[in-house]
Amino acid sequence: MKIVKVDLKERSYKILVGVDLSEIGNHMRDLNLGGKVMIVTNPRVGRFYLPKLEPSLKTSGFSVFKTIIADGERYKSQESANKIYAQCLKNNFDRKSAIVALGGGVIGDLAGFAAATFMRGINLVQAPTTLLAQVDSSVGGKVGVNLPDGKNMVGAFYQPRLVYADLQTLRTLPAKEFANGLAEVIKYGVSYDACLFSYLEKNIEQVKKLDETVLQKVISRCCEIKAKVVALDEREKNLRAILNFGHTLGHALEGLTHYKKYKHGEAVAIGMVGAVKIAISLQLADSSLEARLKELLTKACLPIRIKGIKLSWPSFLRFLQHDKKVLAGNIRFVLPLAVGKVKIVDTVPLAVIKNMVAP
Amino acid sequence: MKIVKVDLKERSYKILVGVDLSEIGNHMRDLNLGGKVMIVTNPRVGRFYLPKLEPSLKTSGFSVFKTIIADGERYKSQESANKIYAQCLKNNFDRKSAIVALGGGVIGDLAGFAAATFMRGINLVQAPTTLLAQVDSSVGGKVGVNLPDGKNMVGAFYQPRLVYADLQTLRTLPAKEFANGLAEVIKYGVSYDACLFSYLEKNIEQVKKLDETVLQKVISRCCEIKAKVVALDEREKNLRAILNFGHTLGHALEGLTHYKKYKHGEAVAIGMVGAVKIAISLQLADSSLEARLKELLTKACLPIRIKGIKLSWPSFLRFLQHDKKVLAGNIRFVLPLAVGKVKIVDTVPLAVIKNMVAP
Repeated sequence: MKIVKVDLKERSYKILVGVDLSEIGNHMRDLNLGGKVMIVTNPRVGRFYLPKLEPSLKTSGFSVFKTIIADGERYKSQESANKIYAQCLKNNFDRKSAIVALGGGVIGDLAGFAAATFMRGINLVQAPTTLLAQVDSSVGGKVGVNLPDGKNMVGAFYQPRLVYADLQTLRTLPAKEFANGLAEVIKYGVSYDACLFSYLEKNIEQVKKLDETVLQKVISRCCEIKAKVVALDEREKNLRAILNFGHTLGHALEGLTHYKKYKHGEAVAIGMVGAVKIAISLQLADSSLEARLKELLTKACLPIRIKGIKLSWPSFLRFLQHDKKVLAGNIRFVLPLAVGKVKIVDTVPLAVIKNMVAP
Repeated sequence: MKIVKVDLKERSYKILVGVDLSEIGNHMRDLNLGGKVMIVTNPRVGRFYLPKLEPSLKTSGFSVFKTIIADGERYKSQESANKIYAQCLKNNFDRKSAIVALGGGVIGDLAGFAAATFMRGINLVQAPTTLLAQVDSSVGGKVGVNLPDGKNMVGAFYQPRLVYADLQTLRTLPAKEFANGLAEVIKYGVSYDACLFSYLEKNIEQVKKLDETVLQKVISRCCEIKAKVVALDEREKNLRAILNFGHTLGHALEGLTHYKKYKHGEAVAIGMVGAVKIAISLQLADSSLEARLKELLTKACLPIRIKGIKLSWPSFLRFLQHDKKVLAGNIRFVLPLAVGKVKIVDTVPLAVIKNMVAP
């Protein structure tokens, strides 16, 4: 087990990487919670892991309740949050009670938002079961639900009390979902850590084979980076934005294709290549960067360009302009200068973006 | 004008008491906001004060948008929050944009919750137009909406950037609404400030006549107390709970009567008398306290006992047990020891409560 600490004063917490879900009760006992725990999960993840989680929590003295939410991004909604609230109300949850998010990004964001807002905030424990959630969405406190007209448009910054990552859960993860998480792993390399990037170039096959030593090293390194950035800039006023590398184009691409054609990581992969191309065309980065990034993404089974759809530039632009990163109408890009170093640029000419998207 | 500062480090803000709504633009210009402002109000308040607010904001260079929410507690809902989100989305609001809550507690809580959660939080300015909102709900960051099964059950702690209290707005406030706010004013006296209580005993007639000097003194003193308590305990882990004096019984009474028979302040008034009686029966307080409190409440046109309904103790108990202040099944009371001094007690015997409610 590796322990990564997120330092946010009285709201500090630990990320435990490489633990066993069947021991979560022991670790939650140390958090001085009340006696009631609501596990939020989906049917598939629940079938695999509730048999580990529930007995552990019960043995540690917790009363355990469950809210099962159907699988899929469209259930990251106010309606699903209302289901969680209703279960908590019905079972007399109080401010010392806890919600455990057992699942991937959808469950983590949704259950996190419910925990952030029920009674103005109750305890939250993240038990991420996907690579994406383990390296990214479960850490740092971004929680939320989608509106019919806007993904992640309603949410909060709300830190968990504990992040509990069992790497064994990745063995039941479909390959496409694993690649989805790898995109964010590679993002950390380009945005912040040239060593991580080189390490991935050398060890990508072991990563894909789920070699435990390599995985623990990679995942805990990603968590360290995120923890450090979040500790310096919890509410994304400046530094934290560097973790959005690849996300400006990625989010627009997801929106334009109605979140159906691309998984988040796939869209981010294409977005990272796009951002590199923009950086090169603005002479901020050397062209060798594009080749290295494309090679690593391809080995990670991720797409490097848009295929099979014809993009309409006006529609794409509309999605770019609705991004949460837009300020005063300026589209914000995170552009790489080299591997491990990025810069926030609000002044990319529209012609440059257009040329890259719809040449 | 009196300035009260709420000291919460990087989230500190000022409460301006005794300002003119037609000058709000000047004060908001200092906050380094983006160019867009959404005013949230109800039809009645909007009719009176939008003609002051809008030109001021426009003159200061803001683009002004409006969301009008129907009047009444039942519109403090997710549906109303969704209306605000939709207006913000439609008008391309970004993270530097602001929401101005122009109205009483319902508008402040609702617009505050929308600001807290839209894009994970945008700027919020409170422009309270009722006494209750000016002394209590607009200060301290409690925001939220009601669930069909629970008042204020969904919410957040989210601080405004500015509280802007124009005392002239109290001139258009119905007398019943004014008394509603006086209950919270009197609460500050009993909970925290014996001088304020004595001052009220001496000056209650001038208060009711809206004497500006007296009002400014009283309202800014209430804000000072709340600011101090919130600065020490923003998220109500301990100290802040003293501001709930009268609210344990008050909330249950409101719930039991479906929020129809009593205004919040009226229920709190009855709840304060109940809490005093409990304190006396537990020999924590002297019986003279009851007489002083009842006299002041009566002069303030507030009820001091339940009238015209027969309470069912089992139903009342159920509401007591659903209060957000309940921890591990213990009903939490704030009990007075003397004027200006209260104590949090989790161990009031049920028989004592029952005897007081349904003797």
